[in-house]
Amino acid sequence: MAESEELLHQEDVQQRLREMQELLARHRLVEGLVHRQEMAKHDIVENLVHKQHTVELSRKLTDMHPADIAYVLEALPLVDRLLVWDLLESERQGEVLLEVSDAVRETLIRAMEPEALVAAAETLNADELADLAPDLPQEVMQDLYLGLDTDEREQLRAAMSYPEDSVGALMDFEMVTVREDVSLEVVLRYLRRFDELPDHTDQLFVVDREEHLQGVLPLDLLLVNDPEVLVSTIMQTDMMALHSDDKADSAAQAFERYDLVSAPVVDPDSRLVGRVTVNAVVDFIREDSESEILAQAGLKEEEDIFASVWSSVRNRWAWLAVNLVTAFIASRVIGAFEGSIEKLVALAALMPIVAGIGGNSGNQTITMIVRAIALGQVEPDAARKLFRKELGVAAINGLAWGGLLGLLAWWLYGSVKLGVVMTSAMTLNLMLAATVGVFIPMTMARLGRDPAVGSSVLITAVTDSGGFFIFLGLATLFLL
Amino acid sequence: MAESEELLHQEDVQQRLREMQELLARHRLVEGLVHRQEMAKHDIVENLVHKQHTVELSRKLTDMHPADIAYVLEALPLVDRLLVWDLLESERQGEVLLEVSDAVRETLIRAMEPEALVAAAETLNADELADLAPDLPQEVMQDLYLGLDTDEREQLRAAMSYPEDSVGALMDFEMVTVREDVSLEVVLRYLRRFDELPDHTDQLFVVDREEHLQGVLPLDLLLVNDPEVLVSTIMQTDMMALHSDDKADSAAQAFERYDLVSAPVVDPDSRLVGRVTVNAVVDFIREDSESEILAQAGLKEEEDIFASVWSSVRNRWAWLAVNLVTAFIASRVIGAFEGSIEKLVALAALMPIVAGIGGNSGNQTITMIVRAIALGQVEPDAARKLFRKELGVAAINGLAWGGLLGLLAWWLYGSVKLGVVMTSAMTLNLMLAATVGVFIPMTMARLGRDPAVGSSVLITAVTDSGGFFIFLGLATLFLL
Repeated sequence: MAESEELLHQEDVQQRLREMQELLARHRLVEGLVHRQEMAKHDIVENLVHKQHTVELSRKLTDMHPADIAYVLEALPLVDRLLVWDLLESERQGEVLLEVSDAVRETLIRAMEPEALVAAAETLNADELADLAPDLPQEVMQDLYLGLDTDEREQLRAAMSYPEDSVGALMDFEMVTVREDVSLEVVLRYLRRFDELPDHTDQLFVVDREEHLQGVLPLDLLLVNDPEVLVSTIMQTDMMALHSDDKADSAAQAFERYDLVSAPVVDPDSRLVGRVTVNAVVDFIREDSESEILAQAGLKEEEDIFASVWSSVRNRWAWLAVNLVTAFIASRVIGAFEGSIEKLVALAALMPIVAGIGGNSGNQTITMIVRAIALGQVEPDAARKLFRKELGVAAINGLAWGGLLGLLAWWLYGSVKLGVVMTSAMTLNLMLAATVGVFIPMTMARLGRDPAVGSSVLITAVTDSGGFFIFLGLATLFLL
Repeated sequence: MAESEELLHQEDVQQRLREMQELLARHRLVEGLVHRQEMAKHDIVENLVHKQHTVELSRKLTDMHPADIAYVLEALPLVDRLLVWDLLESERQGEVLLEVSDAVRETLIRAMEPEALVAAAETLNADELADLAPDLPQEVMQDLYLGLDTDEREQLRAAMSYPEDSVGALMDFEMVTVREDVSLEVVLRYLRRFDELPDHTDQLFVVDREEHLQGVLPLDLLLVNDPEVLVSTIMQTDMMALHSDDKADSAAQAFERYDLVSAPVVDPDSRLVGRVTVNAVVDFIREDSESEILAQAGLKEEEDIFASVWSSVRNRWAWLAVNLVTAFIASRVIGAFEGSIEKLVALAALMPIVAGIGGNSGNQTITMIVRAIALGQVEPDAARKLFRKELGVAAINGLAWGGLLGLLAWWLYGSVKLGVVMTSAMTLNLMLAATVGVFIPMTMARLGRDPAVGSSVLITAVTDSGGFFIFLGLATLFLL
């Protein structure tokens, strides 16, 4: 972080946001008034007022951390957002682009000229540039590429070649390396030649002449040991070294389990190629869990809350389409029993309960199993145990809640047999939910697919159609 | 982390888990065989085999990091889990207890004698002890408290007095402080008297005689500057200082936005009382998002996947009960229209589609709004904008998907009027979903409650009952 930037508590950032929103509102108000005056006065007054607001807004932005500016931009409607955006210098625009959400970044980039984009991005590192690259126009990337030196070009090429969920995508290239045959005194003198160390430098990497990683030298060992000691004497050789094509997820787990601040990344020949730092991991963890929560609600990606109606429709339509199909299938299952419903209309009122509770219970099971699979804690042997347990839970819930509803059905419609059918149908549908809740994610995992995606839609489809079929089927068999 | 512990990639930990599972399976197999033999041979053989397996298991556990042992324990059924648990020395048991999930921790503590618990916990720090305290029996805590020195007792009391979601609960007390009027040379000499620095020491805290925080001295500034320089010359005074009663959530956001590794915690008089480190924040973020995902599926807390059927039933029943009530209300709405359904049974088949799509669409809206509120980005002014937008999305989806289903209804049942009612009902229910999807979380936020909890249940209740009412009501008005 740059020295001159203020670090604010969340409440202070929100306060700053509110002040800017007020300024912007006043600005719009005045603009509206001016537009209603005659043209003569118009220009002068608008210019004056505009300048005054601009100065005040700029002052609020001064010293704000790029992450806080990103936060403010995300909270502003498009017109205001672009007004504030244009007040930032190019260099800060580059830093802010790295911090805003994907959806908001798109709106900003779309509003910028190619030259402005080049100016904003040219101060960024190779790994930062790689993060922006997918959103930048081809021509801008070419310009930026030409402005890099050979090393940086190589790093940019490398960083862009890794898939999004790999360690390579989290990696940066700012590391400090030392040799093992020197004393700590030499290392200390070497460090004093730096103006500053890269962010999150908690350890130096010990490499040989061919850049093979020999070990790591944590800063605290450097500080507590005698300067006469050799690096090789105190360096740690049992460090966690990542590979650039490892899954980002497994790196994140290592950071969490071992409380790491940074970790070296090596190529297949053990040559040091970069490092991963905890801030990249924190962002990854946050984004990962965000997208899980969004996916569960059927949102393709995080939405800019001020996105147009159309882009929101696009973000949401796929899930609604899938649900429409499954709902239609369930509706056809009911359609097949229309004769029974005509004879006993109570069935129409009771059937959604059976289907609904099945869906809820199935989602509980599937959430649990998906989590266990994600942690790699489910062995084939455990699968059978889990299945038996989930069936047990379903049977108990079915008899308890199904029994209660059976009594209610009896009381409402005066038919013991209807009550018994209700109880049986609920129990059977909960057991169906348990079975499918265990086997859908297991099968998806075995097929090498992510069990978190789509499991919930699938199980609701099964418990809806299944619930209607079981209840109406039992009723047709035993009541009519 | 201790020097002697191995850091493993996730795949290697899983490999280790599989090996231990095999060993345990073989162990159970042999035990089973032995039990079927006569008693004479029994003891000797069992002892031998038992010893052999024990030795092998112990060897696998040697050098494993406590977090990895925790992972293995979570993946083992209760019997095996306790068998492995008993192989660990007391000191490591204490470290592992800090790492396992709450549910699994309970199973371990329940299986331990008070003396064993004291032995396991007595090597822990005050802040670590505070984390375990809620799960430990009263008598054990008393014993442990008596074993602490005055400072540690004070720290334990302090740490236990903070609510779970406050900065105080994330805080530890291991910080290195220096005075501002000394040179870096003095600081470097002072640090060499340590055997090691506390984990995650990326900065030293500069305090005066009364422990008032004056600034922070990042280790990298200590390293790159001339030893003659005074601490006061280069220390940073615009650091992020937290208060122990700040929300943990806002501290986590500060760590994420500003990429911090550690931050000082001060009392109202600006006296340094502790620090928060990034590893505590990472755990907090992970747990926070976990519990959001679990809550969405109606699970009260993370389940031990090998928990008994009964404890799983307990973890899940509340949600099912709530859903039963809302499903029952929806059922009564249908019940009120039984006359209409008797006359036109197609209504029974089509009504779940209207209700279901409304629920899905409402959940999309609510997920978006809850996220915006959590970030503090929704102002009253924005609320109106958001509401208009969501209504627009709902109208488009209603006309598009509702229109499609209207056509299907027409085709299936040969009634244009039925098709029109279907389309209108879907559009209206989607708009109801949008309205409620915006206002439920807004209202909960205004009442100071967490909008993420229960919003999804509420909206499904509204769109179910509302969907049935709108569709059957329109049908009764226009078709019969």
